[in-house]
Amino acid sequence: MNFASDNVTPFCPEVLEAISHEGKSNAPAYGGDDISQQLDAAFSDLFGTDVAVIPVATGTAANCISLSALVSPYGGVICHHEAHINEDESTGVAFFTGGAKLLPMDGPTAKLEASTLDQFIAGQVNRGVHSVSPECVAITQATELGTVYTQAEVSAIGDVCKKHGLRLFMDGARFANAVAHLGCHPADITWKAGVDALSFGATKNGAMAVDAIVLFDTSLKTRVEQARKRSGHLHSKHRYLATQLLAYVKNDVWLKNAGHANDAATVLTDILCQHGATLAHPSDGNELFVHLDADLAEKLRAAGVQFHPWPSLGATVYRFVAAWSTDIAQVHELNARIG
Amino acid sequence: MNFASDNVTPFCPEVLEAISHEGKSNAPAYGGDDISQQLDAAFSDLFGTDVAVIPVATGTAANCISLSALVSPYGGVICHHEAHINEDESTGVAFFTGGAKLLPMDGPTAKLEASTLDQFIAGQVNRGVHSVSPECVAITQATELGTVYTQAEVSAIGDVCKKHGLRLFMDGARFANAVAHLGCHPADITWKAGVDALSFGATKNGAMAVDAIVLFDTSLKTRVEQARKRSGHLHSKHRYLATQLLAYVKNDVWLKNAGHANDAATVLTDILCQHGATLAHPSDGNELFVHLDADLAEKLRAAGVQFHPWPSLGATVYRFVAAWSTDIAQVHELNARIG
Amino acid sequence: MNFASDNVTPFCPEVLEAISHEGKSNAPAYGGDDISQQLDAAFSDLFGTDVAVIPVATGTAANCISLSALVSPYGGVICHHEAHINEDESTGVAFFTGGAKLLPMDGPTAKLEASTLDQFIAGQVNRGVHSVSPECVAITQATELGTVYTQAEVSAIGDVCKKHGLRLFMDGARFANAVAHLGCHPADITWKAGVDALSFGATKNGAMAVDAIVLFDTSLKTRVEQARKRSGHLHSKHRYLATQLLAYVKNDVWLKNAGHANDAATVLTDILCQHGATLAHPSDGNELFVHLDADLAEKLRAAGVQFHPWPSLGATVYRFVAAWSTDIAQVHELNARIG
Amino acid sequence: MNFASDNVTPFCPEVLEAISHEGKSNAPAYGGDDISQQLDAAFSDLFGTDVAVIPVATGTAANCISLSALVSPYGGVICHHEAHINEDESTGVAFFTGGAKLLPMDGPTAKLEASTLDQFIAGQVNRGVHSVSPECVAITQATELGTVYTQAEVSAIGDVCKKHGLRLFMDGARFANAVAHLGCHPADITWKAGVDALSFGATKNGAMAVDAIVLFDTSLKTRVEQARKRSGHLHSKHRYLATQLLAYVKNDVWLKNAGHANDAATVLTDILCQHGATLAHPSDGNELFVHLDADLAEKLRAAGVQFHPWPSLGATVYRFVAAWSTDIAQVHELNARIG
Repeated sequence: MNFASDNVTPFCPEVLEAISHEGKSNAPAYGGDDISQQLDAAFSDLFGTDVAVIPVATGTAANCISLSALVSPYGGVICHHEAHINEDESTGVAFFTGGAKLLPMDGPTAKLEASTLDQFIAGQVNRGVHSVSPECVAITQATELGTVYTQAEVSAIGDVCKKHGLRLFMDGARFANAVAHLGCHPADITWKAGVDALSFGATKNGAMAVDAIVLFDTSLKTRVEQARKRSGHLHSKHRYLATQLLAYVKNDVWLKNAGHANDAATVLTDILCQHGATLAHPSDGNELFVHLDADLAEKLRAAGVQFHPWPSLGATVYRFVAAWSTDIAQVHELNARIG
Repeated sequence: MNFASDNVTPFCPEVLEAISHEGKSNAPAYGGDDISQQLDAAFSDLFGTDVAVIPVATGTAANCISLSALVSPYGGVICHHEAHINEDESTGVAFFTGGAKLLPMDGPTAKLEASTLDQFIAGQVNRGVHSVSPECVAITQATELGTVYTQAEVSAIGDVCKKHGLRLFMDGARFANAVAHLGCHPADITWKAGVDALSFGATKNGAMAVDAIVLFDTSLKTRVEQARKRSGHLHSKHRYLATQLLAYVKNDVWLKNAGHANDAATVLTDILCQHGATLAHPSDGNELFVHLDADLAEKLRAAGVQFHPWPSLGATVYRFVAAWSTDIAQVHELNARIG
Repeated sequence: MNFASDNVTPFCPEVLEAISHEGKSNAPAYGGDDISQQLDAAFSDLFGTDVAVIPVATGTAANCISLSALVSPYGGVICHHEAHINEDESTGVAFFTGGAKLLPMDGPTAKLEASTLDQFIAGQVNRGVHSVSPECVAITQATELGTVYTQAEVSAIGDVCKKHGLRLFMDGARFANAVAHLGCHPADITWKAGVDALSFGATKNGAMAVDAIVLFDTSLKTRVEQARKRSGHLHSKHRYLATQLLAYVKNDVWLKNAGHANDAATVLTDILCQHGATLAHPSDGNELFVHLDADLAEKLRAAGVQFHPWPSLGATVYRFVAAWSTDIAQVHELNARIG
Repeated sequence: MNFASDNVTPFCPEVLEAISHEGKSNAPAYGGDDISQQLDAAFSDLFGTDVAVIPVATGTAANCISLSALVSPYGGVICHHEAHINEDESTGVAFFTGGAKLLPMDGPTAKLEASTLDQFIAGQVNRGVHSVSPECVAITQATELGTVYTQAEVSAIGDVCKKHGLRLFMDGARFANAVAHLGCHPADITWKAGVDALSFGATKNGAMAVDAIVLFDTSLKTRVEQARKRSGHLHSKHRYLATQLLAYVKNDVWLKNAGHANDAATVLTDILCQHGATLAHPSDGNELFVHLDADLAEKLRAAGVQFHPWPSLGATVYRFVAAWSTDIAQVHELNARIG
């Protein structure tokens, strides 16, 4: 049982079927094909508003290309200290934006809070050209610590952004897990709450390699497409990105996969807690963070369970990530095996 | 019959089988998996020397990331005017290198010639920091005009590079077609001829989405991996890049595919010429460039044949690209259909 | 007699007086001082329209910062092959713009011609995101080969830019020499002719170290000021840049200096031609390009005259640059010394 | 009495004399002149070791160009939160380095402490290409809060850098004030303590517009000169930068000026404290930070004294900066005027 991350998983049958199906005939390159042409409509339908969709193969590309269209080379991007763009994407944001600076701030369980964000923005010293002015706020949904912003929380952040004239970007590497947890319409926590652009993650949740840049402000499309091309993220056989995405959203596969992962996380949480683990904090999606004593940690490892220590939350804290492919029956068996 | 490009093709059965096989179990992310770990050995075996292999999903990424490790932000990259990096990759080279400048030069049928290259380098005005000094030469094998450098030609270029202290990079988007044409060992036209880094193309010739950066100077590996990460080209489910590549080189699939494409191009050339087409120039791989009169062009279109005009070679010149998947029997039938 | 360049000269008395005068009291930094605050008005008066003026210490800074506000990182800048931005500013344009590409073209005596420019633009292959689209045209007035665009010629270029939706930038490192030659109002060859931004050179023509970015499109001001700051070109003791500029334009010092340089060039041309030199091409400002036989070249050197060979115009061609400080009487004496 | 900053000052008589002297004859451009050629020797003499000196007009340029030669585009620069490069240079560091990230940390009175630095470096999560690895430490001497690192403190930081394989950079915008305060040899707090490159400030302390990049690792010279040129910081009339620097270091002008400023700060401190001000922290150079009650602040303003609030140290804290040109007699008179 591998709970090291959700990117250790394979891809789901629907994606394989879609790729296999497309693997048989010729089609125009670079997005001129019929499959790729369906993306905007499919996602506009999904989100209940006109969107432009630009697929890329990785989350880092989706995040950094999006940000390059939202901030100037002189601007700042406010994010949480724990944000993937701050902690795990090397110098990607500066590279793609031509120099924009991350302005990290704190908040409980990797979430920005509207009120402290408001204060943080107000407290930025504005010395004109000498200092870096925030131009964008970036939030992660679900967060890097497995928590989920409620609709009200995103809206409140959106309001702060509007008040200060800032853009709002959402890193949705685990967007599906958030929507599945909230049971809301995807619109509720995106464009209706003030989000300008979203990285709509699919790779962790069942795709092979595709995340989509979803632009609610469609005027950004040309700039994003130019940035995608020159950064080498425009695939010639573009339809294989597109077909993964279409298979992923068709018949709510994305929500079924994410719901399954969230459920598996809940089952796992219960079992771990029954055996003495305690939550570092309650989490909402498919990631969970627990204190384990050395004995329990050892028992789990002996049972073949893989997971990571998470020292930033404490010396005895570990992260477990459930996924669309986690075998819940097997998780239940764990109860007995470490009993 | 679609001869518009070789990137209109699907992927080959060996690649599908490989991807499907990997689509069933968990594995470490970011290249820590068993499949990815086989790459260096497989390619070292293929090239007969120790190489480092870094796979990415596109040729633009392979080219630009490679160049970012070969030149400084202040340097110049000599290439042919027709080079893909000059004509088709937007401002990618400047973006990845931090500002390096392309220094395009001429040569017959998109090939640099060693003697004129030598003169070109010698003729670069060196005004110290004011001017841009060449640091690298980039050649495409097979070229953008379907021609192939012989082993002697690459070696001669390699000698010029050594003489002037420049790096040599090879854009091998159609490297397989070149090797299949020459019937040489891949080593003969790469590291033995002075090539420091190669974009080993697979996407056009049967893969779904993968080209490999092959470093003959393995000291560049860390820098390339850093550049790959921050540009968003490190895939989390890295094994799907790796497995495509391994399937592509296993059992000489790459050479069989390319040989088939080259053969198809030869058959097509014969047929077109029988019907009055004349060669713009002899080509060696899977691309051919011919003059067509209006009547023949129309007949071909009426028969459902797709191809592109190539105005840079003349108003009546058209490009046809055969591929690994071209149905040669169908090409033969074309003879009758336009008879 | 040093005709190697006009940047071998010292600065003029008016500039020394201005600097000395400012060298005695405190004043707000970074342009908040009274002298700096006069710049916009002084130059708006000079050009007969509202302009924004941002002074920097070098021509390369003035050119590259201006271009960074006129083109996107994905765009192209059309210029003459001989343009300073193409030949003498290293990789500055790519650095400041974040990757924009120079698209050099030809034209007689370093001048772009409106008709060939129009064709050049029309002939740019537009393959969408794959190719680089021109976003700006950059011309040099006076040119690097000592010629001057007439008012009609600049206007015609401005019309071509408007037709194609491109920006027009003027590198005016020797703008004063051009205006002095033409006898026109500075407005006639700038904003009235469609110029969006001008590098207004002063250093070569009597200042110590200042060129001004003059924005006819004042909406670019904030972006230019941000680019200036982060590139280290905002001086803390900004008034010393400003006072040089004010002294330079006050009482037409700039035109007197340039007129003197142009006159000196004419005198020198006459003398050289009397001794057997022939013009490589007629020039209009303070630079002249002549064929010298070996004998005459040697005589000049023996007489202590400094000048540069100009091999791009031919093996026997040399450049002489007269300046605001050239002693015309001494030039006349040259006649006898090489007689 | 203007204590707003030391960059509100004019330049000193020695600098004016030097500039005026050079303002009379021709000389080779771009540093080929006799004055510029003296720089390396003069500074090698000053520092007691072979150094390479590259003058630029601003401190931001000196800092950012230096850092561009010390770190890769993928690397991190550790500095104090209060550092000028973090707080006052916009996105300059990312721009010049091609994306390197500032890694700010804390420390008392704007100073890094060797032991906490060691821990900070050790505590950086190293996730390979995903995270940013520190490559350089940047300290400011004297600091932005008016304190000065002792020789032992710099050496201890140098040792930490060596231990971890990091470069050490010193922002010496007020280097003279630090040396004057310590009474040490400039070598003691630079190359002997492990500093690789220094921004040797002159503008604030008596020059018009020049700071020098002093390279103790002279192998960095070419890279720095390339970076200087393409960023527009190579002056054509380079001798006016050089002559300012030579006049500034000749006859210990730099130390006399800085000693005077430090003395003036001491006098001012005494007077302010006699009138009820209290030190926010003891400072060592020409900057002082004091708590003022509203009454005293008002009295000072009424007496025509200029100074800035410094809210980051508290609502009642103000900064006063004395300079080389501060009239100490006038400061003494202040005692009576606010009595």
